[in-house]
Amino acid sequence: MVYEATTTAPVNIACIKYWGKRDTRLILPTNSSLSVTLDQDHLRSTTSSRADSHFEAGDKLWLNGKEEAIKDGGRLAVCIRELRRWRREMEDKDESLPKLSQWPLHIASFNNFPTAAGLASSASGLAALVASLASLFKLSQSASQLSIIARQGSGSACRSLFGGFVAWREGSDPSGSDSLAEEVAPREHWPEMHALICVVSDAKKGTSSTFGMQQTVETSTLFQERLRIVPKRMNDISRAISSKDFASFAQITMDDSNSFHAVCLDTSPPIFYLNDVSRSIIAVVEELNRSAGRILAAYTFDAGPNAVIYTLEPDMPLVLSTIKKFFPTFEDFEDPFRTQNQDLPKDFNAGVVREGGWEKGAVKGLIHTRVGDGPRVLGKEESLLGDDGKPKTLI
Amino acid sequence: MVYEATTTAPVNIACIKYWGKRDTRLILPTNSSLSVTLDQDHLRSTTSSRADSHFEAGDKLWLNGKEEAIKDGGRLAVCIRELRRWRREMEDKDESLPKLSQWPLHIASFNNFPTAAGLASSASGLAALVASLASLFKLSQSASQLSIIARQGSGSACRSLFGGFVAWREGSDPSGSDSLAEEVAPREHWPEMHALICVVSDAKKGTSSTFGMQQTVETSTLFQERLRIVPKRMNDISRAISSKDFASFAQITMDDSNSFHAVCLDTSPPIFYLNDVSRSIIAVVEELNRSAGRILAAYTFDAGPNAVIYTLEPDMPLVLSTIKKFFPTFEDFEDPFRTQNQDLPKDFNAGVVREGGWEKGAVKGLIHTRVGDGPRVLGKEESLLGDDGKPKTLI
Repeated sequence: MVYEATTTAPVNIACIKYWGKRDTRLILPTNSSLSVTLDQDHLRSTTSSRADSHFEAGDKLWLNGKEEAIKDGGRLAVCIRELRRWRREMEDKDESLPKLSQWPLHIASFNNFPTAAGLASSASGLAALVASLASLFKLSQSASQLSIIARQGSGSACRSLFGGFVAWREGSDPSGSDSLAEEVAPREHWPEMHALICVVSDAKKGTSSTFGMQQTVETSTLFQERLRIVPKRMNDISRAISSKDFASFAQITMDDSNSFHAVCLDTSPPIFYLNDVSRSIIAVVEELNRSAGRILAAYTFDAGPNAVIYTLEPDMPLVLSTIKKFFPTFEDFEDPFRTQNQDLPKDFNAGVVREGGWEKGAVKGLIHTRVGDGPRVLGKEESLLGDDGKPKTLI
Repeated sequence: MVYEATTTAPVNIACIKYWGKRDTRLILPTNSSLSVTLDQDHLRSTTSSRADSHFEAGDKLWLNGKEEAIKDGGRLAVCIRELRRWRREMEDKDESLPKLSQWPLHIASFNNFPTAAGLASSASGLAALVASLASLFKLSQSASQLSIIARQGSGSACRSLFGGFVAWREGSDPSGSDSLAEEVAPREHWPEMHALICVVSDAKKGTSSTFGMQQTVETSTLFQERLRIVPKRMNDISRAISSKDFASFAQITMDDSNSFHAVCLDTSPPIFYLNDVSRSIIAVVEELNRSAGRILAAYTFDAGPNAVIYTLEPDMPLVLSTIKKFFPTFEDFEDPFRTQNQDLPKDFNAGVVREGGWEKGAVKGLIHTRVGDGPRVLGKEESLLGDDGKPKTLI
């Protein structure tokens, strides 16, 4: 008998940003956040976990085929320990259960998007790990309960345990028991929500978000004001999602991205994630909305120069045509939705882009995706682990 | 008898930024600001004013040899009207005075720095105009009283009526009678204060500050918090100037520049003045301070990508060598102080600059200057106006 589970988990991109911890050990945030879960058909982390009493060297983890140490007391070890504890409680109550909690684990994880894409893989990766172990251990805890564990692995991972539109409630309990993710609306509520990821080259490595956010908490004079503003934004964007009011959804998303980057700039020393290409994408999206006479697209930027542009499916032809026109890529773009080209609004002022335009490759690549579902449990034929308990693909 | 006066006025660069009006007609600011006046030996506006009953076509103005309209009710007209009013009061009290207040004016103004340098010429230009008319009219008002007039021409012009370190007090009277400039310390108090202006190319014209600042007032959610922070910064930097504490002066200057650009980014739509070269200059100055183990340089940016770096004279060799190393210019730099080169700190991490470094001309030029004095009255041989009442140099 092989005890094993394989799951996938999605990437999520926040509309209301997580930036700042009130407890760095438990990863308790200074503010609630809200994200859109992206479709795993396009972007996903896959994780297989196997428990076997014959594994001799303790717990082992391979990431993209390369073994990674599981540091004692590290964030990964904490997640594994907590999930084992829940399994142990089940085993204590029901003696017929195999003692998986006492067996070493082999875990293999794989991201189907290149690290070079600049997408944070820690959120989907940690969520896939937690979902995989929860499946292996047949845990009865809800996704929100699991999100408390995922949160301790990587803050925003908690939001990748749900599909659709997801809130991470900051909570107030010092133990973190109420700092968890919950669904605001499922993907089926607003399936027209599409996203275009613009992968932007950067000649300069930015500040890590783990380090940067605490610098902001400690030194930004504007940061406390941001914390006072976010609760209203959380309410307003939840209402916009409920009523499928894209213009409000988009305006709040852009405002919060700008507010987040503003407090980064107000940090000492200042933190910059947006570069000239990012600025230009902002200018193009603002001009697209202006010239179209309605808000049809929203940009948002995480801790890096890549843009994610949210738009509804019927407007993607316009958004995509605009971005391709001003930010030509080296390689042709493979669009799973085969979006058609569309002419720009007549009134569009190309002068918002820098003189001479951008050289090819300023935007390295585009990814067109949409709102998606939560973690999926796959069949054993999809396992990343071979009979020998090692990844089928090793590096 | 020719009634004429020629004066020069200096450029000033704020350490605590003016951004936002509470009264757009009277130009009353939402916060106090503080600047360093730069040396007129290097950068200046010169203005000649002549009153003559024989001038037939009313008031006329030439800027850099080109005639400019004096718009009725415009800012320039307001300044001229107010100064005439004060002259009229003198004439009413003393009948022996020539009736200059009733005669048309010819005014010629000239900036010795190219517009392309990206330095705001409105501050020095308006200050030179006000100083010139005050001299022509032999007004007895103090420089602070005159600053109230200059303020209505162009907000930050009020600070160019003083040398040294200058505060513009926001005031509280709705009439603007207490929104004026005053000296915090004269240049002689801290003559070692030097400045290096880095003129940065920009492929994209930025938002005008007049428009941008009101957008911030109306839409930024963080702006009110900035207003709560500035009074403490004003006190702290005044104290730093009094005690010649450069490290504090520099930290507050950098913090306030970053805070100003943060609220610009938090504006809807967002306003960006810093570009990738500006960001890189910030990174280099921060790294210079870190590697030297003390704060020896402070960057500050107005509504554009140009950096002004404040440092004390003994540290200018290090600052200048660092900037020249990472931002090579096309043309050789003419340094009036003939600053020597100096090696960078051993520990300096060149990795803060983007991969491959900056191409020649990313910084177009450098201007090395220092703290300077207030407006100067020149002799009639320096007049910009010829015998015919027109500028000697016409375009």
